[in-house]
Amino acid sequence: MADSTRIIPLGGLGEIGKNMTVIESDDGLVIIDAGLSFPRDEHLGVDLVLPDFSYLRERRDEIRAVILTHGHEDHVGALPYLLREIQVPEVWATRLTLGLVKSKLDEHGLVQAAELLEIDPEGAPVAIGPFMCEFVRMAHSIPDAVAVVLDTPAGRIVHTGDYKIDHTPVDGFRTDVGKLADLGNRGVDLLLSDSTNAERPGVTPSERTVGEAFRAIIPQRKGRILIASFASNVHRMQQAIEVAAETGRRVAIVGRSLRKNINIARNLGYMDVSDDILVKPSDLGELRPEETMILCTGSQGEPMSALTRMAYRDHSNVTVSEGDTVIISAKPVPGNELRVHDTINGLTRLGAEVLHQEIAPVHVSGHGNAEEMRTVIALLRPRNVMPVHGEFRMQTAQARLARDVGVPGDRIVIAENGSVVEMRAGIVRITGQVEAGVTFVDGLGVGDVRDVALRDRRHLSEDGVLIVVATIGGRNGREIETPDVIARGFGEAGPLLEEARIAAERALAECLAEEIVELKLLQEHIHDAVAQLVHERTGRRPMILPVVVEV
Amino acid sequence: MADSTRIIPLGGLGEIGKNMTVIESDDGLVIIDAGLSFPRDEHLGVDLVLPDFSYLRERRDEIRAVILTHGHEDHVGALPYLLREIQVPEVWATRLTLGLVKSKLDEHGLVQAAELLEIDPEGAPVAIGPFMCEFVRMAHSIPDAVAVVLDTPAGRIVHTGDYKIDHTPVDGFRTDVGKLADLGNRGVDLLLSDSTNAERPGVTPSERTVGEAFRAIIPQRKGRILIASFASNVHRMQQAIEVAAETGRRVAIVGRSLRKNINIARNLGYMDVSDDILVKPSDLGELRPEETMILCTGSQGEPMSALTRMAYRDHSNVTVSEGDTVIISAKPVPGNELRVHDTINGLTRLGAEVLHQEIAPVHVSGHGNAEEMRTVIALLRPRNVMPVHGEFRMQTAQARLARDVGVPGDRIVIAENGSVVEMRAGIVRITGQVEAGVTFVDGLGVGDVRDVALRDRRHLSEDGVLIVVATIGGRNGREIETPDVIARGFGEAGPLLEEARIAAERALAECLAEEIVELKLLQEHIHDAVAQLVHERTGRRPMILPVVVEV
Repeated sequence: MADSTRIIPLGGLGEIGKNMTVIESDDGLVIIDAGLSFPRDEHLGVDLVLPDFSYLRERRDEIRAVILTHGHEDHVGALPYLLREIQVPEVWATRLTLGLVKSKLDEHGLVQAAELLEIDPEGAPVAIGPFMCEFVRMAHSIPDAVAVVLDTPAGRIVHTGDYKIDHTPVDGFRTDVGKLADLGNRGVDLLLSDSTNAERPGVTPSERTVGEAFRAIIPQRKGRILIASFASNVHRMQQAIEVAAETGRRVAIVGRSLRKNINIARNLGYMDVSDDILVKPSDLGELRPEETMILCTGSQGEPMSALTRMAYRDHSNVTVSEGDTVIISAKPVPGNELRVHDTINGLTRLGAEVLHQEIAPVHVSGHGNAEEMRTVIALLRPRNVMPVHGEFRMQTAQARLARDVGVPGDRIVIAENGSVVEMRAGIVRITGQVEAGVTFVDGLGVGDVRDVALRDRRHLSEDGVLIVVATIGGRNGREIETPDVIARGFGEAGPLLEEARIAAERALAECLAEEIVELKLLQEHIHDAVAQLVHERTGRRPMILPVVVEV
Repeated sequence: MADSTRIIPLGGLGEIGKNMTVIESDDGLVIIDAGLSFPRDEHLGVDLVLPDFSYLRERRDEIRAVILTHGHEDHVGALPYLLREIQVPEVWATRLTLGLVKSKLDEHGLVQAAELLEIDPEGAPVAIGPFMCEFVRMAHSIPDAVAVVLDTPAGRIVHTGDYKIDHTPVDGFRTDVGKLADLGNRGVDLLLSDSTNAERPGVTPSERTVGEAFRAIIPQRKGRILIASFASNVHRMQQAIEVAAETGRRVAIVGRSLRKNINIARNLGYMDVSDDILVKPSDLGELRPEETMILCTGSQGEPMSALTRMAYRDHSNVTVSEGDTVIISAKPVPGNELRVHDTINGLTRLGAEVLHQEIAPVHVSGHGNAEEMRTVIALLRPRNVMPVHGEFRMQTAQARLARDVGVPGDRIVIAENGSVVEMRAGIVRITGQVEAGVTFVDGLGVGDVRDVALRDRRHLSEDGVLIVVATIGGRNGREIETPDVIARGFGEAGPLLEEARIAAERALAECLAEEIVELKLLQEHIHDAVAQLVHERTGRRPMILPVVVEV
């Protein structure tokens, strides 16, 4: 029987975020990426969403390593939660990614939890767990991203990570199309490929075009320049700082995550920023507005971020005023649009002109479009393709692209989280399904908030809660005090609450008259009586919690 | 002293939606539009948002008429709520708008509440309240939209309503640029102008380009064609039906609001659809997929809409399957993006190809872009401009456009909801502020849900609720039963709830030992003890409701 390799995506398929893929042979498994995602509206009160580690818990003795393709949260953010719970001998990543991850593990007190090993994208193949691995530089919106090549007993797998084909990246490290072509010549059995922008035709513009936009916009401006972007977009910041230098502005870096990332990138040589150009945010007051550029967090309208606080005049060091220019150099992640619009309106009210990606070329995507995906498939000529990283529509669009380029339809696998994709003798098929849901982080709790709690939160959020407290007792256990009704989040309803008390009292009396005395039944009757009354009167269905106290 | 006219926007400024503007002289007032808006995420459980009618309540004896510029919900949706509460002698609108409004008032049992009078855009000026009014045809994404011209004692006002300059509209009724130019020659003192797309450069494409896209896409397709759009976009539907006729498809109309609007539009002659081409949704099964086109609601991913139900295989008459093509001919309203994406993914899973505005030219805006606004200002040459209909950033962008075209900065008024904008001797300035907040509709209740209830709903939605029920009493009023703790929406926390009971009991005992017996104080102590414990253990802050029952 031929050797088998199993590919098991635990996150990132059918969704954007929490990317995590297991590659497993009979001699052990490695995990590519350990990402998190951010809660959706319906995840009320949840702080973070992690992949479900159930499968890894079951196979904990087989885990040999985690390989990280780059340092974005949706690829590394779940690592502390994984290491906290499951022993992983090795974590592999490129230098910048390791720098970011070390700082993250440090915050969680986990820096000793695994051996951190550096990937050299130009180096010779290395053994990671049961596989010989090599790496290919890929351009992305964070430096030092790589694709992973795994030689497995059942064939060669290439996992692209996130990428675009940027022939003029800011750091000069292009997507290594030569190495991809070489791999194509050597033979690729399975390609796992980023699907994010598969629906978008053509090619994503180079990161350098954003620098050109900065150069076109900034020299003419008189007031402060503020630029908000993702804290990890090191090259965006580098380009902004270069334009500041050219236009005689000093640069303040505002926002904790941005300061941290820029420090790490400078220390590791990924940014070239002289100390002279930087100014402390608290010293901004000593410079005229036209002598300053402020790089800040808040491009997603996050409530506590620097830019949002500036928009609401709530920032200690930065005041935005008439004549200032704010550049939001990012695209709202779906779901954040309204918050970003609120920030834009707030800044405009203060007198700033706000340039954003809808009206100026101040942002480009970090993901390649359809033509770039076709190029990668053409270079690698994989025998099988499995679209990863993306919603179902994006996976499907990538499948269409692969067919266009000549990959037969039966060699394209649309898997979902938890699919067991088995490769054997060059043939790839889905042979099973493992548990792969979501794990919510809420406050300090990981995994204790589940669907029932969220359903209750949704119910509470719709129409609030009515609590009916009834007391029964007395000599024969049959005396009733008029119940109390407490409403929260319901609306102004004094007379209705009085009616509800009477309805509850009547329901209780009827029960006792019929010899119904079991607390559960009494509560049910009160619930139904009050629910019906409230719905008739208001059309609403608040959560109704009857409490019967026996004395 | 010169005559004065006051313009008081009660909705639609600093926001998208609930448009409503009062134009008032000493002899009475008219109201232009009575729109609603849809709740934002933070308006938990709210169904609709209305303008605040406080000012109109105070001035109810002065109200002479409502003038409606067109039939969209954000311009007419609040009318039933207004008429229900306040006597308005006349409602003026064009024929299609009246048709839509009649049907709406009928549903609310209000069709007799005001005299409905038809606007003839080509007709002679008419007296409405204290003003002589005439109207100008404007193209928009619903037929029969008009601008309103009011001759007031203090000068001539033009209110554009929503518009684009479409030189090739589907019905042939162009924006009447000739009449605008004529008004410019006669003199315009104040322009109130739609700001929605003021940030977007250039010109919005003609509605006809969507028909061209349909013609490019549909003939090649083999399976079912489904097209989702706004139910009021009569010309979009007309164009789709024409392409169906050309390609031998019969058309089913699915979705209550769409059926209603198409019926009204056909009856009034705004659509030209022969009975032969229509097929009942329940008869679709008798046709092959390639013989059908389905027009449906659900372009915003609304949970109960036709397209959403089809995406989840939950529609009684329409099944979507491999080879079908779905065209979402609309743009997600900000805030609806994720729901629309979910719908697209669901339909893709069923095998359909989904074309939407991000990847195909299947939608155009109903609002003009910057160049169209410049054109209107150039035609009207107003002495003063007041941007309306739009968020603050859009109003500001329109102000910039007006300055570009030569309107002096001190003749441009950026007002907000409730501003009293006074025009006197050709000079316009803000002279006051009236109450102009929001009114929430929640179920059957109008206005009873306010900020406190929403704040409570938000609190409940974040971390749920813990209810602590304690009983004190006995011979000396000092006996305590171990309190009960009920949690909803909190998470799995058995042991913690046990700790909470103990903490509550201890807090109670301490109070009684210190002779604290007042219920309010007891509840406060219990609240604080439990809140602190829960926050320490979980990092969460659920709503804590202590109930102390004295027996």
